Amino acid sequence: MKAAVLHQYDESLTRDEFVRYEDFADPKIERPTDVIVRIGGAGVCRTDLHVVEGIWRSKVDVALPYVMGHENAGWVEAVGRGVESVKVGDPVICHPLVTSGHCLACRRGDDMHASDSRFPGINANGGYAQYLSTGERSLIRLPKSLAPKDVAPYTDAGLTAYRAAKKASRHLLPGQFAVVIGAGGLGHIGIQVLNALCAAEIIVVDRSETALQLAKECGAHHTVEGDGNEVESVLGLTGGSGAEAVIDFVGEGDAVAKGLAMTRNGGFYYIVGYGGKIELPTMDMITSEKTIVGNLVGTYPELVELMALADRGLVHLATREYRLSEANQALKDLHHGKIKGRAVLIP
Amino acid sequence: MKAAVLHQYDESLTRDEFVRYEDFADPKIERPTDVIVRIGGAGVCRTDLHVVEGIWRSKVDVALPYVMGHENAGWVEAVGRGVESVKVGDPVICHPLVTSGHCLACRRGDDMHASDSRFPGINANGGYAQYLSTGERSLIRLPKSLAPKDVAPYTDAGLTAYRAAKKASRHLLPGQFAVVIGAGGLGHIGIQVLNALCAAEIIVVDRSETALQLAKECGAHHTVEGDGNEVESVLGLTGGSGAEAVIDFVGEGDAVAKGLAMTRNGGFYYIVGYGGKIELPTMDMITSEKTIVGNLVGTYPELVELMALADRGLVHLATREYRLSEANQALKDLHHGKIKGRAVLIP
Amino acid sequence: MKAAVLHQYDESLTRDEFVRYEDFADPKIERPTDVIVRIGGAGVCRTDLHVVEGIWRSKVDVALPYVMGHENAGWVEAVGRGVESVKVGDPVICHPLVTSGHCLACRRGDDMHASDSRFPGINANGGYAQYLSTGERSLIRLPKSLAPKDVAPYTDAGLTAYRAAKKASRHLLPGQFAVVIGAGGLGHIGIQVLNALCAAEIIVVDRSETALQLAKECGAHHTVEGDGNEVESVLGLTGGSGAEAVIDFVGEGDAVAKGLAMTRNGGFYYIVGYGGKIELPTMDMITSEKTIVGNLVGTYPELVELMALADRGLVHLATREYRLSEANQALKDLHHGKIKGRAVLIP
Amino acid sequence: MKAAVLHQYDESLTRDEFVRYEDFADPKIERPTDVIVRIGGAGVCRTDLHVVEGIWRSKVDVALPYVMGHENAGWVEAVGRGVESVKVGDPVICHPLVTSGHCLACRRGDDMHASDSRFPGINANGGYAQYLSTGERSLIRLPKSLAPKDVAPYTDAGLTAYRAAKKASRHLLPGQFAVVIGAGGLGHIGIQVLNALCAAEIIVVDRSETALQLAKECGAHHTVEGDGNEVESVLGLTGGSGAEAVIDFVGEGDAVAKGLAMTRNGGFYYIVGYGGKIELPTMDMITSEKTIVGNLVGTYPELVELMALADRGLVHLATREYRLSEANQALKDLHHGKIKGRAVLIP
Repeated sequence: MKAAVLHQYDESLTRDEFVRYEDFADPKIERPTDVIVRIGGAGVCRTDLHVVEGIWRSKVDVALPYVMGHENAGWVEAVGRGVESVKVGDPVICHPLVTSGHCLACRRGDDMHASDSRFPGINANGGYAQYLSTGERSLIRLPKSLAPKDVAPYTDAGLTAYRAAKKASRHLLPGQFAVVIGAGGLGHIGIQVLNALCAAEIIVVDRSETALQLAKECGAHHTVEGDGNEVESVLGLTGGSGAEAVIDFVGEGDAVAKGLAMTRNGGFYYIVGYGGKIELPTMDMITSEKTIVGNLVGTYPELVELMALADRGLVHLATREYRLSEANQALKDLHHGKIKGRAVLIP
Repeated sequence: MKAAVLHQYDESLTRDEFVRYEDFADPKIERPTDVIVRIGGAGVCRTDLHVVEGIWRSKVDVALPYVMGHENAGWVEAVGRGVESVKVGDPVICHPLVTSGHCLACRRGDDMHASDSRFPGINANGGYAQYLSTGERSLIRLPKSLAPKDVAPYTDAGLTAYRAAKKASRHLLPGQFAVVIGAGGLGHIGIQVLNALCAAEIIVVDRSETALQLAKECGAHHTVEGDGNEVESVLGLTGGSGAEAVIDFVGEGDAVAKGLAMTRNGGFYYIVGYGGKIELPTMDMITSEKTIVGNLVGTYPELVELMALADRGLVHLATREYRLSEANQALKDLHHGKIKGRAVLIP
Repeated sequence: MKAAVLHQYDESLTRDEFVRYEDFADPKIERPTDVIVRIGGAGVCRTDLHVVEGIWRSKVDVALPYVMGHENAGWVEAVGRGVESVKVGDPVICHPLVTSGHCLACRRGDDMHASDSRFPGINANGGYAQYLSTGERSLIRLPKSLAPKDVAPYTDAGLTAYRAAKKASRHLLPGQFAVVIGAGGLGHIGIQVLNALCAAEIIVVDRSETALQLAKECGAHHTVEGDGNEVESVLGLTGGSGAEAVIDFVGEGDAVAKGLAMTRNGGFYYIVGYGGKIELPTMDMITSEKTIVGNLVGTYPELVELMALADRGLVHLATREYRLSEANQALKDLHHGKIKGRAVLIP
Repeated sequence: MKAAVLHQYDESLTRDEFVRYEDFADPKIERPTDVIVRIGGAGVCRTDLHVVEGIWRSKVDVALPYVMGHENAGWVEAVGRGVESVKVGDPVICHPLVTSGHCLACRRGDDMHASDSRFPGINANGGYAQYLSTGERSLIRLPKSLAPKDVAPYTDAGLTAYRAAKKASRHLLPGQFAVVIGAGGLGHIGIQVLNALCAAEIIVVDRSETALQLAKECGAHHTVEGDGNEVESVLGLTGGSGAEAVIDFVGEGDAVAKGLAMTRNGGFYYIVGYGGKIELPTMDMITSEKTIVGNLVGTYPELVELMALADRGLVHLATREYRLSEANQALKDLHHGKIKGRAVLIP
């Protein structure tokens, strides 16, 4: 098959070519529960840039060359002998993790923390390709009206944003505020999910005018330009106290310190983006009684919930299509902040 | 002052006159935290009909003649020596309970279950009058743009509906269903609150076409006529399983049995209306693992939350105005199902 | 194999023989995930008496003759081709439900509400026998030190009591009260679980002196004889207000009405036992804002949690052993209130 | 009156004298809700050492000389005109914060986050003295059997430990682990509260043999010496995964990094002690989905709950008494790790 293959890391992201479009070995059915999916679309994620930079090397063990792409949807191409819940030809969206379902975390509905799992596109070959190997338990059948290429980014960008926004919605009461830092591929979904799941007033902070425009279309009640005074602006909008929830989809540079400063005492700072550092005196956590919450994709049932929102039109995904052979262009456009919403590669 | 006074009970609600519009003793400041409110509007509640019927006699001890009316808003007319947070002339809405704030329930934010409280309009003189005696802790100042007569029914009809819908919203996930039985004074608020606080699909059941029309305007996704087949209709809309939450604003006749039958296994039946009975074998509760939840107004902070929804236009109250001297007409119109939304008496 | 087989219902429980000890067809591996367990012990449950009475006929569809017994533990005797997590000879305890794990309820950790499941001993042949057919997902391996016959009743009596007590422990605060009605096979576990999971003061109500003695050994702080004045006694012990949680393991006769009367306003009445009726005016639910919670066994992870308590000695199960051929004696002793704790049949 | 007065900061804690025992102006009734308490005992807290070091200067505005001491109990000496719930002579324990009860946080039961409050001993004169000025809403009457000097440290050391342990107990399930870092004045209470409120296995880490001995007496199931390998030891005890909850009562030096390393993926790190820094890459929070929770004393109802535990003997406070004139000795003994449990000053 054809694939966009990563051959070497590039710490400064300055090479002309991050991946190479070329022939790659077809995935094969190896376990009874394996499923091969013909890719309809594969989302391009900032994590892919981080993979190219090599910063995931400390977390996962994967040998180059390999294929990135962890936001996948398409059609069932082949199934293992034990597969009962999908059949060849079914349009499907792929939960990013592949699990056996036997560990206690899975039994508790917490499949993201499965003790045994693989994550195609991160620690196994992913969907920047014509075909992907995944497992039966990872698949949700799509209604025929939804094209795989239009929903692929829900599996990670959408699901991660959904999970963080859902957590925040559990404690946000009418009259309270939520700040969203970063209205990109994840953030623009997060805004819509917040609006669907609670009645907090939503303040969106971003450096880009285009992003703030997208934020407004997604239902932001206030937008704040990231001009250096964003903390003061947020405090001003919230009566001086800060927001009960801050969801940081950036997680690098000064976003972290500012995000924590925008969080009200007793409030929650949800960290989703990464690349930077959290640094603060323990005393500041004590006197403020703030909570810092790490966030990592979402569960299979949460992807089902997100698809229900999408089906009802309560969440809309802004995408921009590229051919799989244009993967480098998509990655570079993302790197240079030129994408409104999410890039999707079409084989 | 003038008031609409209850002089005798009427179990069958067949008398010409339920209350008498006449002179009544002015309320006086007796405690340092007392506040006298000049009534701008007093909501007319089905509970008032139940009071006239005498069915509250077993619950509270009140001597006739007395003044009903527990949904009150107006302007501060006089304050006790210890009152600091409001001043004469302030427009205010009155939380229905008057508490000291010293008991453990109040300290936990659960003021509705205060060990010492009074409930003007139920066990003390209420707001079917020109003036009302209440307490400092019960008052929320209104923004000048909101007229007291337009918001008075939020204090009980609105607050009760808000609390029940908020409880349901805490567990309703996208892809799940909420049934609202009865789209009257409380129900039409409940529908809007559900839409503001969660993304469940809302099914409204009512016998009246007018009520179902109001339900649609309030955001109901499906309406079901109460024609005897409403259980089958709800099961049909929910894939055969029933709804994860049923909020019953009727609570009499066959609404209870039908509401429980519409509730999915593992789901919640919220009982708000009353007058009827719950009757079911314990075995049915065991095998279905359903939960039956009683609901009684809401807390002061919940009234603050509801006012925040109203301020942002996320909840709108349908009212119909009557003069205080027309109290009997309002009560009769309510009794005969002729009111869309909520009646309000204006002194 | 030998089994104690139910051939006909007995509504009044007056026959000499409820089941017949005789030869019965061996269970066979039919699905790849099937497991045959050689029974080490099968608990005898009040539900079995209710099955004999025929009151489950309205809920489940099972043809006589069949084999009761839903509290099973033993050793793996044979496994289907797809089974990976247990092997022949392993000592195991059996979660009562057999599920595929594919439905959304299972994916959320709520396997008790699986859309497809069977319940050996209720709607399929159970463990009053030498061998039982169950599924891989239902098995928890036992540490070798624990004999199957000593833990079998944890799978239903223990698990049901655990789940109800765990729910109550989530809201019971120090200084609050829990009432346990009935200190039999389930109740004596419930008392211990409450003590392990929260710091509420525990009041146990039972008609039997022996049961109250067992309650004390299990950690009850107060015992109340069911002499007709038990409501007054509980109100007296709780400062006149009732208990924040009442767990009713009886669920028939006057236990329900009394249990609800013992529940504090704003509190929770957990119904576990069955056979009787819930009957109360909706008004009583409204003014008290009580919650009635149905309870049905527990999830697989909850059985793992309960085994952790047992392993650490925080919960102890009182059992009385009978030969499988003495099944009728065990059932009759249970019917006549002669068993302290739980009867277990040993093949 | 006599008091132990702070006249100057001492950043290195090397002076001979931290406070001076001398005459100080008596507190006076200024507001109708003021209460003067005659001190029976005042706890000595590590925060007092931090105050002496001057590290609180960035958080609160207080002019020297002033009187430290925020863990107070004694007898009502005088009351303002509006005080109704206590009378002169009553033995009382003092919640550390003084609030009006009118703000929304107080109305929600979250009095620790009151928008208007004072904190005697931190930003107002405290209890290292014969008399203390506090407010009616801060007082809990003691049963006559409990001497104020024996319970004073519950108001902050106890309450802070209680709140953090209670938060952890809400999610700790049987079979899971809790790590307590530091078994000093707070930690030894935290261990007992965990045991009272949940069934997690408790692992205590401390550098001091004496502290670990106290931990065992308080119910620790495992103790780990802080010898540099404590992370490995905890991972070993928890099957390699770490603990679902880590409560860090130290919060300085390498405790923070180690505490986070001991926390299981998806788990909670509760930070209570302070003086150090939290420093970690955002990526580590994302891939682990950990949560970091700041903790600050507790609410008034939580102090009531803690007193209920103490009354029932479920929590015991280890104290060592000093005369008020020996305040410097107590502070130095605390600084040099010579106190088992908590020092209390007796005027």
